[in-house]
Amino acid sequence: MNRDEAVIGIDIGGTTTAVGLVDQKGNLLAEGVIATGSQGSAETLVARLHEKIGDLHKTIPDNLKIRGIGIGAPNANYYRKTVENPPNLNWGASVNLVELFRKYYDLPVAVTNDANAAALGEMQFGAARGMRDFIVITLGTGLGSGIVANGGLLYGADGFAGELGHTVVDPVGRECACGKRGCLETYVSATGLCRTASALMAERLEPSILRDLSYTQLTSKIIYEAAIQGDGIALAAFDATARILGMKLADAVAHTGPEAIFLYGGLATAGDLLLSPTRRYMEQDLFISYRGKVLLLRSGLPEESGAVLGAAALIWHELIEK
Amino acid sequence: MNRDEAVIGIDIGGTTTAVGLVDQKGNLLAEGVIATGSQGSAETLVARLHEKIGDLHKTIPDNLKIRGIGIGAPNANYYRKTVENPPNLNWGASVNLVELFRKYYDLPVAVTNDANAAALGEMQFGAARGMRDFIVITLGTGLGSGIVANGGLLYGADGFAGELGHTVVDPVGRECACGKRGCLETYVSATGLCRTASALMAERLEPSILRDLSYTQLTSKIIYEAAIQGDGIALAAFDATARILGMKLADAVAHTGPEAIFLYGGLATAGDLLLSPTRRYMEQDLFISYRGKVLLLRSGLPEESGAVLGAAALIWHELIEK
Repeated sequence: MNRDEAVIGIDIGGTTTAVGLVDQKGNLLAEGVIATGSQGSAETLVARLHEKIGDLHKTIPDNLKIRGIGIGAPNANYYRKTVENPPNLNWGASVNLVELFRKYYDLPVAVTNDANAAALGEMQFGAARGMRDFIVITLGTGLGSGIVANGGLLYGADGFAGELGHTVVDPVGRECACGKRGCLETYVSATGLCRTASALMAERLEPSILRDLSYTQLTSKIIYEAAIQGDGIALAAFDATARILGMKLADAVAHTGPEAIFLYGGLATAGDLLLSPTRRYMEQDLFISYRGKVLLLRSGLPEESGAVLGAAALIWHELIEK
Repeated sequence: MNRDEAVIGIDIGGTTTAVGLVDQKGNLLAEGVIATGSQGSAETLVARLHEKIGDLHKTIPDNLKIRGIGIGAPNANYYRKTVENPPNLNWGASVNLVELFRKYYDLPVAVTNDANAAALGEMQFGAARGMRDFIVITLGTGLGSGIVANGGLLYGADGFAGELGHTVVDPVGRECACGKRGCLETYVSATGLCRTASALMAERLEPSILRDLSYTQLTSKIIYEAAIQGDGIALAAFDATARILGMKLADAVAHTGPEAIFLYGGLATAGDLLLSPTRRYMEQDLFISYRGKVLLLRSGLPEESGAVLGAAALIWHELIEK
C-alpha cells in the first residue's frame, strides 16, 4: 500500500450527493456534499461533481495520487456500469456513468447500488472485517441490502442481486413505489415506520402525541423521540417493525447462511429500540440449524460518511483484485 | 481426465440409500439401492454400504480406480462432515461420516445435504452447465434447495446455507416438523400438496374423487392423476401450490439474483401442471429489475439417479479443485 494514494468515493442520493477522497485504510482525507438536483441530467451532476472534486483536491497534499472512482447510486448495475430507471432521479431508462466520468478523468470507475457499496465498506473498513458471509441492511427512506457470501459480494447473473426491500411480507399488503404490494420496505424503513404508526393510530384507542400530527408531518425521528418518552403507539410501531424485520431476516439467513447481519442508515440509529426486539424476533423465526449462530449488529461505519466509504471500498476492491 | 477413474456417490434417504460408481462425465457405471434402516445406527448403514459397494465393484472392470466418496444426506454439514439431528434417522445429535467411511476406505470423503448435492450435479452433469448463478429446488417429502452464486455453491458461515423449505409463508400457518409454523415446505412439497388438497375439500363444495380417500390415503401422485383428469380440487391444489412457490421463488431471486431456477424431484415430475403456473406467478411477483430474466426449468438430471450423480459431483468437484 502506498500512503500517497487515494480514491474518489461518490454516493448519489435522491436529494444530496456526497463525495470524498479516501485512502486504502478508509481514512476520509477530504469530503463534500452537493445537491443532486433530481430534475437535472446526469451530465450536469457529473460536471458539478468534477468541480467539487477539484475544490477538495486543493485541500490535500499535491503528491496524493488518485487511483480510481467508486460510485454508489440507486438502481446502479455493476456489470453494465449504468444507473437504470432510478426512482428519484429524472435520468431515464439508462445512464452510463463511466462514459460521463471519462470525460473528466482517465481513471478506473466502478458502479454499484448504495447498499452493495455499504457491504463492501463494512467488509473493508467496518465491523465485517475478516467475515466471508454477512448481510448489510440499509434502512433509509427505503430498505436496501448487500449480501456477501463465500467472501464475495453477490451481484447475481444480471448485476441486481440483493433487493431484500422488495421481498414480500404480505401479497395483498401495502402499495409499494415499485408497483408491487406488501414489499418489505413498505413496512421496514423510515417511511414504513410512519405508515405503521398511522395504521396503529387507526387500529387502537390509546392516546398518543402522534395523533396531533398530520400524516405528512410524521417522521421516523418524531416517532423515535415519542417512543423514547414512552408513547405507546410509537413503541408499538417500533415493535411491529422489528417483528417484520426479524421474520424476513430469518428468511434471508435461510438463503445464504451469514454469520452476521449489520443494520446501517437512519433508522438503524434508533439503536436498541429496533435492534433488541429484531434480534429476539429473528431468533425465534430462525430454522433450528441457525439458532444462536447469527449476530445482528449495528454497522461499524460512521453514519455520516459510511456511504462514501462504501463507494471508495468498491473501487479499492477492484484495484487490489487486479 | 482419466477414463479409468470413478467416484462413489451415495444418497442417504429416510427410507432407502442409493449408491453408484460415477465417472467424471457423469456416467453411472454401476448402481444399487439398500434399505436405510432408519432405526439402525450409522455404523451399521456404512457397513452394509461397504458390502453393497463391494458387489458393485465386481460388475465393473478391474482397472477402474476409485478416487473418492461423495455423500448427500439430510442435515449434513459440509464443513464438519457430519450429519446433525437428521429428522428421519435415529442417529442422534451428530455423526461424523468421514470417520465411519475411513474404516473401510482410504479415500477423500465429502458430505453435504441432498439439495446441495443436486445443485452441484446440475452444474456438472445437468442443465446448469456454464451457469454461475442458479438455484435448485428439490421437491420431495419436503423442500430442499441448493444455491450457486458467483460460480460456487453457498455453504454459509456454518455449513447450512440454502434452507428455503424453512422460509416463512405464513407466520401463523401450518405446523412444520421443524417446530416452526407456516414454513414453505408445509405448502410446497408432496406432503404440502396433500395438506392443500385436504384444506380445499374443507373449504369448497365442489365434488372431487379425492373426497373418497382418507387423509392417510392421499398422495401427490393420486392428486396429480386426478388433476390430469380435470378434477377441480386437484387442479386448485396445484394452482395454490404454484401460487406460493412462485411468490417465494421471487423472494429467492431478490437475494442472489440467479439466471435460472431448476425444479428437481418427485413433485417436479408433475411438469407443466406445476411449472407453467409457478412461472407465471413468479414473474408477476418479481421485482422489476428481474422481470423477464429468470428461467424456471425442470432439472436436467434423470429423476432416478440424480441424487447419486449429485453426490458424485460433490466429490469430483473437490478432487478437481485440489
